[in-house]
Amino acid sequence: MNCPLPTSRYDTITLAHGGGGTLTASLLNEIFLPAFGPPAPAPHDASAFAIGPQQLAITTDSYVVQPLFFPGGNIGSLAVNGTVNDLLMAGARPRALTASFILEEGLPLATLRTVVDTMQQAAQAAGVRIIAGDTKVIHRANGDGLYITTTGVGDIVTPAPLAPERIAAGDQIILTGDLGRHGIAVMAQRLGLTFEPPVQSDCAALSAPLLELFAAGIPLHCARDATRGGLGGILCELAAAAQLAVEINEAALPVAPAVRSACELLGFDPLFVANEGCAALFVAAADVEPTLAILRRYAVTAQALVIGQVAAGRGVTARTALGTTRRLVPPSGEQLPRIC
Amino acid sequence: MNCPLPTSRYDTITLAHGGGGTLTASLLNEIFLPAFGPPAPAPHDASAFAIGPQQLAITTDSYVVQPLFFPGGNIGSLAVNGTVNDLLMAGARPRALTASFILEEGLPLATLRTVVDTMQQAAQAAGVRIIAGDTKVIHRANGDGLYITTTGVGDIVTPAPLAPERIAAGDQIILTGDLGRHGIAVMAQRLGLTFEPPVQSDCAALSAPLLELFAAGIPLHCARDATRGGLGGILCELAAAAQLAVEINEAALPVAPAVRSACELLGFDPLFVANEGCAALFVAAADVEPTLAILRRYAVTAQALVIGQVAAGRGVTARTALGTTRRLVPPSGEQLPRIC
Repeated sequence: MNCPLPTSRYDTITLAHGGGGTLTASLLNEIFLPAFGPPAPAPHDASAFAIGPQQLAITTDSYVVQPLFFPGGNIGSLAVNGTVNDLLMAGARPRALTASFILEEGLPLATLRTVVDTMQQAAQAAGVRIIAGDTKVIHRANGDGLYITTTGVGDIVTPAPLAPERIAAGDQIILTGDLGRHGIAVMAQRLGLTFEPPVQSDCAALSAPLLELFAAGIPLHCARDATRGGLGGILCELAAAAQLAVEINEAALPVAPAVRSACELLGFDPLFVANEGCAALFVAAADVEPTLAILRRYAVTAQALVIGQVAAGRGVTARTALGTTRRLVPPSGEQLPRIC
Repeated sequence: MNCPLPTSRYDTITLAHGGGGTLTASLLNEIFLPAFGPPAPAPHDASAFAIGPQQLAITTDSYVVQPLFFPGGNIGSLAVNGTVNDLLMAGARPRALTASFILEEGLPLATLRTVVDTMQQAAQAAGVRIIAGDTKVIHRANGDGLYITTTGVGDIVTPAPLAPERIAAGDQIILTGDLGRHGIAVMAQRLGLTFEPPVQSDCAALSAPLLELFAAGIPLHCARDATRGGLGGILCELAAAAQLAVEINEAALPVAPAVRSACELLGFDPLFVANEGCAALFVAAADVEPTLAILRRYAVTAQALVIGQVAAGRGVTARTALGTTRRLVPPSGEQLPRIC
């Protein structure tokens, strides 16, 4: 199901370096970490730091999605929800966001206004304020129009930051939603394809259910939203970071019929298609039921279910509907570039 | 000395919208602030917020400078020093930085490595760590290669955040360095001009002298680094925000001979050419001497001097070497686009 791995040695940047796969990891491991040093025992969506007694988390992401608008959202809602979710994944309550805009000469102001208004609505829905920003303008180029970088700061409200190294053998893996809607929605918009029913991006903030899990004191071990690289990508990354094996039940994975059809048509594996409002949570077996009970009370996580577990060993295996198993190989890049 | 103001009504983004002048302000006032709301009584380089009892400041900036490398620095040192300085300008001690990279397909990895290494050196020199990041890749376009967005968080160590509304009539204005070196260095590199002696960007972090001023308890009222729009631009902005008049002595302004020659040759006004390691500090008259005594102990602020004062009234006037006065008009955009 995976293409042979392309060469991993490049002298120049390729689109796949931005895909969240092994090539993105090679940039991290060969350029960024040797210079900046590791922010934490394992790289994570958000980094923890302390100011005095206050434990904080910080995360930053640039958004370069094409096209800017897609069914279910636009680059602005994506930027806000993505940053909010990254803070939540570290066990932090989002407290402040910043937004920096790189605008292409010629961008209609009306487009900018719509995106900014959407950001404000998304921030309000997620219970966070955008309190600082910047604007730069670049020369007219290929019509991309607009890049947004959002940074979020929150206070860690779990007893310890959620992190891959806290994953333990026996942990159950809960998936909060169905797979691949964001990637397929963006791709369909880009290619001018229409599906019946149309596929909407799952772009949403997970604040309400996650903050309730934190407040209820449910001891989550790790949480990760399945963005670039999809669920398959993040599971490969987490299994490697935790030095454990992850086993998932492929037949149990929720995939909307339209997403499944689009993937079959286009040769995509839904396990590696990006989501923007769906996370994998790692909890001890005893905590599964209370976790699911809370998640199912919120529309955004109403479909939550157990999709697999953690065991001794290494790597990620998927039990197929036929009863066989396949080993998931980390993607070298995103199947769909410029997805976020 | 100023061109007639161009029309200020546009339907699309122009390069001047990124120049830090009145058009940038119009984006802020017409699009960003109506949506996001004001972060503080007056917009400032960094925004203050609180988590529990902890007073924090946050700032974000995107860097799109062309070319990426210039005498005295590169886009990486600019990004780190610019963000560190913005925190200091709010009275905050920089504690953590994030860096998000938008890379153009085709960018040599060696270029990225050099920039990243420079960032680490700049961060180390400024006493701050880069603890989170992101990488995205965009399609090959016009060869820009690399945009960086840095965000900084710090704890406010002054009794209150430094802010324009704390400026008072009678305040003296201290300038920490000479004008225009960053703008001229970038422009010379871009146009292939050489000056003898060559003009080096003043790109530097002001951490050491500013943190000592804070620690000494010197009651600064406001501080602003003279970046986009230069000293003239920030003084116009601060005078408007403070609803007071600013009077400067043009003959006292330190401008390196090579910068002055370059400005005469090219028709630039050094008052509106960008700096990246030079700030204007507003202090009560009684605090001028102790402030200067500290600043002059550090190479980066050794030239510090009083250049003017604040009075009742409105706007910014410059007393020229001939004894006449001219009124400074806020620039509509940067004289040199893509300066930072």
